[in-house]
Amino acid sequence: MPSPGEGEAVVRLAYLSIDPTNRVWMREEDSYLPAIRIGDVVRCAGLGVVTESRNPAYTPGDLVLGLLGWQEYAVVDSGERSAQVIPPGLAPTDVLSIYGSTGLTAWFGVHDVARVVEGDVFVVSGAAGGVGSVAGQLAAIAGARVIGIAGSAEKCRWVTEDLGFDACIDYRREDVPARLAELCPDGIDVYFDNVGGAILDAALANLAIGARVALCGAISSYTAAEPPAVRNTFELVSRRARMEGFLLLDYVDRFPEAVMGLLPLVLEGRVRHAVEVVEGLERAPETLNRLFTGDHTGKLLLRVSDAADRPE
Amino acid sequence: MPSPGEGEAVVRLAYLSIDPTNRVWMREEDSYLPAIRIGDVVRCAGLGVVTESRNPAYTPGDLVLGLLGWQEYAVVDSGERSAQVIPPGLAPTDVLSIYGSTGLTAWFGVHDVARVVEGDVFVVSGAAGGVGSVAGQLAAIAGARVIGIAGSAEKCRWVTEDLGFDACIDYRREDVPARLAELCPDGIDVYFDNVGGAILDAALANLAIGARVALCGAISSYTAAEPPAVRNTFELVSRRARMEGFLLLDYVDRFPEAVMGLLPLVLEGRVRHAVEVVEGLERAPETLNRLFTGDHTGKLLLRVSDAADRPE
Repeated sequence: MPSPGEGEAVVRLAYLSIDPTNRVWMREEDSYLPAIRIGDVVRCAGLGVVTESRNPAYTPGDLVLGLLGWQEYAVVDSGERSAQVIPPGLAPTDVLSIYGSTGLTAWFGVHDVARVVEGDVFVVSGAAGGVGSVAGQLAAIAGARVIGIAGSAEKCRWVTEDLGFDACIDYRREDVPARLAELCPDGIDVYFDNVGGAILDAALANLAIGARVALCGAISSYTAAEPPAVRNTFELVSRRARMEGFLLLDYVDRFPEAVMGLLPLVLEGRVRHAVEVVEGLERAPETLNRLFTGDHTGKLLLRVSDAADRPE
Repeated sequence: MPSPGEGEAVVRLAYLSIDPTNRVWMREEDSYLPAIRIGDVVRCAGLGVVTESRNPAYTPGDLVLGLLGWQEYAVVDSGERSAQVIPPGLAPTDVLSIYGSTGLTAWFGVHDVARVVEGDVFVVSGAAGGVGSVAGQLAAIAGARVIGIAGSAEKCRWVTEDLGFDACIDYRREDVPARLAELCPDGIDVYFDNVGGAILDAALANLAIGARVALCGAISSYTAAEPPAVRNTFELVSRRARMEGFLLLDYVDRFPEAVMGLLPLVLEGRVRHAVEVVEGLERAPETLNRLFTGDHTGKLLLRVSDAADRPE
């Protein structure tokens, strides 16, 4: 266990957030954040409990959230390595999912980037994932007809039967372009993309005039040597459509607004979410890999210790 | 010469506008307008003079603009085949270029889609073309640093020395990604795309955070069996960038605003434009093909008759 220097505090990790973007940071080249180098602690969002502090912003026992990384203890400060103190009352696993990266990404993607309105035909890929499953429900609440794209019959069943999506395409068994054309005869008004590549291309081929494409992620490309080809960009001209990428980190100042927006929807059961917790820091690599084989549903978390499992 | 039916007028064609989008309409599949079918008159914008009228909207001698097509005489009405009466005082060749499709496309692309502001780094492909040459000058007037991409040393010379672009990359001789990185060390704020494909990909790889990509055309794809691959769409996420397609036909109601905006700039010599006039309707196919070999500069027009060459 490290000891805090002046202005530092030590955090015992409890849960790690396992997100596709972690894999982006492991590529050779820098992305929107510097690449993780060999020998660095793997960067990821994590939740832990302050055990010792020489910084007035942190008190032992505080639950804190930050880019704490794949480790048992992290050292935080009030500068580049700062962490956010989480008010009591929220379940730790919710803080890293529905009120964390996945829920908030869905919130800003649907409301700010895609600007979903009543009557929109809304298509989301990675529909059974942490972001996609929430995005589809938020779009439905905004009045859209919601069509998911997911990788198994079971995932499609979950988003349609349990989450209320209007339809879901199983991309492993169905012809995505043909099914999109069939399910969206007047075109797609909003496409919320988590996967990129061929499915993005299929969506571009089926846009309605004035469509919005919110690019949230491109999981099909993160482990590829070369990003997959997208050929239908001219459809953005024909359909006078807008395609826009976004990152949650640009919305940090507005997190409270999104949490306040999500809270009643979650408490009333209008937005549901799934979290799978994997036990043990040593399973971080295999758990990250599961994002790319698609054998999970909802948000993946890693439980590193029982530090946060105190009675609320 | 056709005779007008009730509610119709006959127009003698004077000039035809030769635009890349004409080629899009010739593809097998429909685009934003129905595909031209074998046996149809080839659709294009044209300017002519009313010779005979049975419609109160048109008077013999009126100069009119519309989708008049590759023919010597067109029949217009007040419905789907309507044409716009052009007020006297504008040169016919200007009506089809700087105050027509190319100038107006540049105007709305720069101001409405790309929203160029002071200090932007603005890159435009097809820089020596009818749209690109005007777009670059409008961006410079809005306070941007302007970098063109064009297909010859002579074109690069024209846009830098005569039109005042800050730099120009000759894509046939230079390494576009490397030169863009060199000329835009802090990234591209606005990319105005007329070509698509590999050059679009190179621009995507060099975007600044918050960049806007205005998709105007994709001339590299119009004659290709399969549209060229674009691989860098994930850069839109990393750079939180927006890519948006647009069509001039959506701005018809605002043409007067753009013409009024361009008029003083043109008259003061702050916006210059080039027009090449080719003689003879029979040369329409070869003239259209020249857009795709890139051996022209500025706007290409076809002179079909002397109908509009009256003294102003």
